[in-house]
Amino acid sequence: MTNVAMTDEARELYSHATTASLTAQLVNRGLRTRAISNIAPVNPNTPRVFGPAYTLRYIPMREDLATGAAMADTNNPQRKAIEVVPAGHVLIVDTTGMDVSGTFGDILVARLRVRGVAGVVSDGPMRDIAELKTMDFPVFARGNAAPPSYASMLAADAQVPIGCGGVAVFPGDIVIADPDGVVVLPIAIAEEVARDAVEQDRLEAYVRERIEGGDSIVGVYPPNDDTKAAYQAWLAKR
Amino acid sequence: MTNVAMTDEARELYSHATTASLTAQLVNRGLRTRAISNIAPVNPNTPRVFGPAYTLRYIPMREDLATGAAMADTNNPQRKAIEVVPAGHVLIVDTTGMDVSGTFGDILVARLRVRGVAGVVSDGPMRDIAELKTMDFPVFARGNAAPPSYASMLAADAQVPIGCGGVAVFPGDIVIADPDGVVVLPIAIAEEVARDAVEQDRLEAYVRERIEGGDSIVGVYPPNDDTKAAYQAWLAKR
Amino acid sequence: MTNVAMTDEARELYSHATTASLTAQLVNRGLRTRAISNIAPVNPNTPRVFGPAYTLRYIPMREDLATGAAMADTNNPQRKAIEVVPAGHVLIVDTTGMDVSGTFGDILVARLRVRGVAGVVSDGPMRDIAELKTMDFPVFARGNAAPPSYASMLAADAQVPIGCGGVAVFPGDIVIADPDGVVVLPIAIAEEVARDAVEQDRLEAYVRERIEGGDSIVGVYPPNDDTKAAYQAWLAKR
Amino acid sequence: MTNVAMTDEARELYSHATTASLTAQLVNRGLRTRAISNIAPVNPNTPRVFGPAYTLRYIPMREDLATGAAMADTNNPQRKAIEVVPAGHVLIVDTTGMDVSGTFGDILVARLRVRGVAGVVSDGPMRDIAELKTMDFPVFARGNAAPPSYASMLAADAQVPIGCGGVAVFPGDIVIADPDGVVVLPIAIAEEVARDAVEQDRLEAYVRERIEGGDSIVGVYPPNDDTKAAYQAWLAKR
Amino acid sequence: MTNVAMTDEARELYSHATTASLTAQLVNRGLRTRAISNIAPVNPNTPRVFGPAYTLRYIPMREDLATGAAMADTNNPQRKAIEVVPAGHVLIVDTTGMDVSGTFGDILVARLRVRGVAGVVSDGPMRDIAELKTMDFPVFARGNAAPPSYASMLAADAQVPIGCGGVAVFPGDIVIADPDGVVVLPIAIAEEVARDAVEQDRLEAYVRERIEGGDSIVGVYPPNDDTKAAYQAWLAKR
Amino acid sequence: MTNVAMTDEARELYSHATTASLTAQLVNRGLRTRAISNIAPVNPNTPRVFGPAYTLRYIPMREDLATGAAMADTNNPQRKAIEVVPAGHVLIVDTTGMDVSGTFGDILVARLRVRGVAGVVSDGPMRDIAELKTMDFPVFARGNAAPPSYASMLAADAQVPIGCGGVAVFPGDIVIADPDGVVVLPIAIAEEVARDAVEQDRLEAYVRERIEGGDSIVGVYPPNDDTKAAYQAWLAKR
Repeated sequence: MTNVAMTDEARELYSHATTASLTAQLVNRGLRTRAISNIAPVNPNTPRVFGPAYTLRYIPMREDLATGAAMADTNNPQRKAIEVVPAGHVLIVDTTGMDVSGTFGDILVARLRVRGVAGVVSDGPMRDIAELKTMDFPVFARGNAAPPSYASMLAADAQVPIGCGGVAVFPGDIVIADPDGVVVLPIAIAEEVARDAVEQDRLEAYVRERIEGGDSIVGVYPPNDDTKAAYQAWLAKR
Repeated sequence: MTNVAMTDEARELYSHATTASLTAQLVNRGLRTRAISNIAPVNPNTPRVFGPAYTLRYIPMREDLATGAAMADTNNPQRKAIEVVPAGHVLIVDTTGMDVSGTFGDILVARLRVRGVAGVVSDGPMRDIAELKTMDFPVFARGNAAPPSYASMLAADAQVPIGCGGVAVFPGDIVIADPDGVVVLPIAIAEEVARDAVEQDRLEAYVRERIEGGDSIVGVYPPNDDTKAAYQAWLAKR
Repeated sequence: MTNVAMTDEARELYSHATTASLTAQLVNRGLRTRAISNIAPVNPNTPRVFGPAYTLRYIPMREDLATGAAMADTNNPQRKAIEVVPAGHVLIVDTTGMDVSGTFGDILVARLRVRGVAGVVSDGPMRDIAELKTMDFPVFARGNAAPPSYASMLAADAQVPIGCGGVAVFPGDIVIADPDGVVVLPIAIAEEVARDAVEQDRLEAYVRERIEGGDSIVGVYPPNDDTKAAYQAWLAKR
Repeated sequence: MTNVAMTDEARELYSHATTASLTAQLVNRGLRTRAISNIAPVNPNTPRVFGPAYTLRYIPMREDLATGAAMADTNNPQRKAIEVVPAGHVLIVDTTGMDVSGTFGDILVARLRVRGVAGVVSDGPMRDIAELKTMDFPVFARGNAAPPSYASMLAADAQVPIGCGGVAVFPGDIVIADPDGVVVLPIAIAEEVARDAVEQDRLEAYVRERIEGGDSIVGVYPPNDDTKAAYQAWLAKR
Repeated sequence: MTNVAMTDEARELYSHATTASLTAQLVNRGLRTRAISNIAPVNPNTPRVFGPAYTLRYIPMREDLATGAAMADTNNPQRKAIEVVPAGHVLIVDTTGMDVSGTFGDILVARLRVRGVAGVVSDGPMRDIAELKTMDFPVFARGNAAPPSYASMLAADAQVPIGCGGVAVFPGDIVIADPDGVVVLPIAIAEEVARDAVEQDRLEAYVRERIEGGDSIVGVYPPNDDTKAAYQAWLAKR
Repeated sequence: MTNVAMTDEARELYSHATTASLTAQLVNRGLRTRAISNIAPVNPNTPRVFGPAYTLRYIPMREDLATGAAMADTNNPQRKAIEVVPAGHVLIVDTTGMDVSGTFGDILVARLRVRGVAGVVSDGPMRDIAELKTMDFPVFARGNAAPPSYASMLAADAQVPIGCGGVAVFPGDIVIADPDGVVVLPIAIAEEVARDAVEQDRLEAYVRERIEGGDSIVGVYPPNDDTKAAYQAWLAKR
């Protein structure tokens, strides 16, 4: 298991950087495919999560293997993952493009919450939606489906590179989600990208003030030298 | 018309069983394709419905037949269905994969409500969404579209076997919907499946308590013999 | 720029006609493809917008051209559009089928709001969703995506005919959106269609009363001559 | 069963009219949705078929009903259709959007051929492709799939209105297929449309000669009065 | 590496069984999801292949990792697979739903051919199509794309369970492909299923003779007891 | 009109470079989205074309504008394009994602051929397929559809930037197509990329010889220094 040590500064950055600015910083670095779109928090009151990626990979089901009974096997990668994903990590799931089974339901999510896991990201649907909406735990997913995962999928392995919503995810990458979607930061540049994103968010707060005050976007967004200087002055006064 | 007599016990079971447990019970019986996913109640305050299926089938429109004027024909299968679907039934609709027309709007839904119909399930969009959100009547559908049904569809017949959201539905099957989606129970096993699902829901309430209390899922979910015994004791005390 | 003069009567009609009735009137005239379905207001408190169309067209990105730096170019059609779309118009955007980039974010939308633009319609996702949800400005879009538009798209030009959500839109067409979706009225018939739609809405309010009162839809919806006469009497009494 | 009497003239027209001209004539009459695209003859040596539609409708499978054993039931609508579709008719199939099962294989197709059926049109895949490619019998379909139909589908009924490839088909409509695809002519206008299409094909043969000879399309395609006159002269000389 | 010993009898069965009969036998055993549809041999003169599965898994690309230079790394799972997949095996590839890159081109395929590999199955496109069409080596794929694999994908690992075209594939499963598509047989039942399929093919050859001779399918296909007895007599005479 | 002067050397390079090597060279330069996949020559005997792009853009149809009569208007952008696209250019068409209408048929294609146009690329279907298959003129498209373009589309303008098959195309870009698909080279780097691609093709011919001779891909593909030296010696001997 990749247990990623995270500095306090990194934690602070990850807890504030918006996915909008993170993706802008990533595109600046030539990385255009780091975001999962059209994904939403099941419980709108838990709209943000971050942490190192713990990956889980499904494949399509095979009728003789994907059964309720198989779920009792403690070596089943899905069941095992629930008990071993480290506290603070985000469990991120490749559901192999299936959209007819729920990735997890309320009991597995309850276990993850008790264990201190940071949250769940799945590119497939969830089940027990009514319960998940009341749980104080961030789950980002695409839609709802009643059937258990094994109705259409089979857990293959965990902590391997996966594709989630078309995005390559390596164990230990930093996953950050907010209402705009999910971003996966390569660990080698995660802190640096987050630092620049937080700075971008700060600048854009200033720009937004200017725009609300009636300024044109010309020279202001993106900022020219005058605007940058004015921003520095604004920063100094805060 | 298939008028399904329903025992009080059946009614009680159908009114409580979750679609999550119903689908698990169905997969146990080798039936993996009984649920419609990514479907939601238009009015979130009416999140549950059950009843025997009354089916309505559309085909793609033909410009000379699918007109507003044709709606006045009392033999139009759509108009006829609205007046003859029995009280207590669920009107379930095959919209032939079209997603650019509203299946029904507020007037037809109002008529169904007045007539005591249990609810509506459509694998296509609805129209008059703003009104439907205020009506105390369960409508499960996929999205929103302004145009009337005949902009892209033509009602072909009613009370024939249909596919709804990829699920075979026979008239008289039991339809149950909640926030996880819609399940269609073959009538011959509906009551038995619902009974087992309600029992599963009860067991899972106990399991959830154990998990919230800090237990691992190992041996608890799915339950081993010890957990089953403890569950029986818990049940006895309730 | 097509600056469409709008009479007070037209404005009144457009501000009330539902997209459900507008599309019914359009189908009556042989126009079945004037509505964008499965599109929703980002901020549910701004569920309606109307105005002449100001069109913006994207093409797929090319890595060397679609960069953050290119956004500073005042000739960039996207940036230019933000500053020149006239007050009262609806900025309507063809995102070329891409669903992985946000069309606009909060700063550009704030500028449009300050400038008195009526609203935004995009057949792609938005970004800065959390902020847009708090802004008193109608934005109709399909989903959410964190990356900036240039992660996958390039603004090509403005005020040309476009396709938006499969609908042909010409500059100056009247765009009307409500919770059922977006309708695009050809300018030559816009006022007439809206007038008939408002009348249809009025009739349907009466029909809805009748249905709620227990009447069958037969002869009432669509109305036969008796119902039409009764409606006239009802109207006279109002 | 709709047994459509066909005049010799109609037969002659249907055997020559191209689907390209037939669809042009249909669009002239306001019917834009009468063609199935991206469909091809399995055996490229049998690239044309016409005849009245005999419809067969599938729904999604249900595991307990869609079995090999069920195929022996002579009331199974699929099996029954094979024996009762009249000679000269086209068996046209609604495969409910499924693309993982073969609609028919070589044995059922052999039976249809022996019985004098005109051909098969399916909006799903075929199986026994290698054999079908050697049989002197037109089968138009979309792709290939090894599994038997009942792996994912269940025959529901026959000779009802269906949707095939997004096109409404009524029993008795005239189906005409060539390498451009399949066209479904409403029976009431079939002969008239075919007559105009054959005339259009004749005119376009002349236009093609002119274009190959170096003429511009201006005034020639579509033809102005001069070109029409020259065409009449050309016709007279043939 | 799973090196599957194969008996001569098994080899004989696998070299003759059609995917049509194999899938029918699998559905009889409750396995409905063992076939990849809409896949075709690139070179139509190599329409059949069988062998144990050697799996290769891609994930979506990440721009800094998926480069031409990375292809020189001998630990790259794609490059490694080419050199280690055993003779007689089928290299079967999960392309993660991408359809814009070629899985392999002529040089890698040439190497596989020289090494005695049985063939290639990919659920994505191929490149160097013109060359592959001239090579005496079975490659089954879906379409064509010019860009190298790393334009949109990254090889993640080999010899792990994968999904290929929606079908679960385990290393060592028996892969059989013909013009109807690709079937993946679980190794534990592969020989038995193939034996029954070969017998079914033999019976269907007899049935086809009967049908061509003018018999109805009733009682013949599927065969009743009389037909089965006649078949045994026919077999005895061969 | 962008009339691109082309040197004899450029012409020679474009006439030989494979799209496989061109896309590899483009990815090396950070351009991953320059190829249209799953597109094929309608006539397999005309499998290659190159030339500067002349773009044509469609939008979705509007019933009152997209008629046969409108085709007679010499200002119709589609008709105009046919007469003005310069000899030697490739007419490349954005069909706005529609797949139910034929982009062009045999008469327009015949006119383009007579006028010396290099070829046609469309991301939609063609019509008059049977005729196009016999014409000595390269047309690359996706599938077949009988209806005329105006059944679902309306020509909007020409010689503007377009998206074709998800690829940004600017007027004057160099379009090259072969059986692997279509590549669009930005004009500024077209000759340089083609030069490198032709060199890569030459190197790969050598590599292919080595692989056919039994060499491993290790050190040979991609080539290490030894292989590069041996290649130079091989080149010298040719």
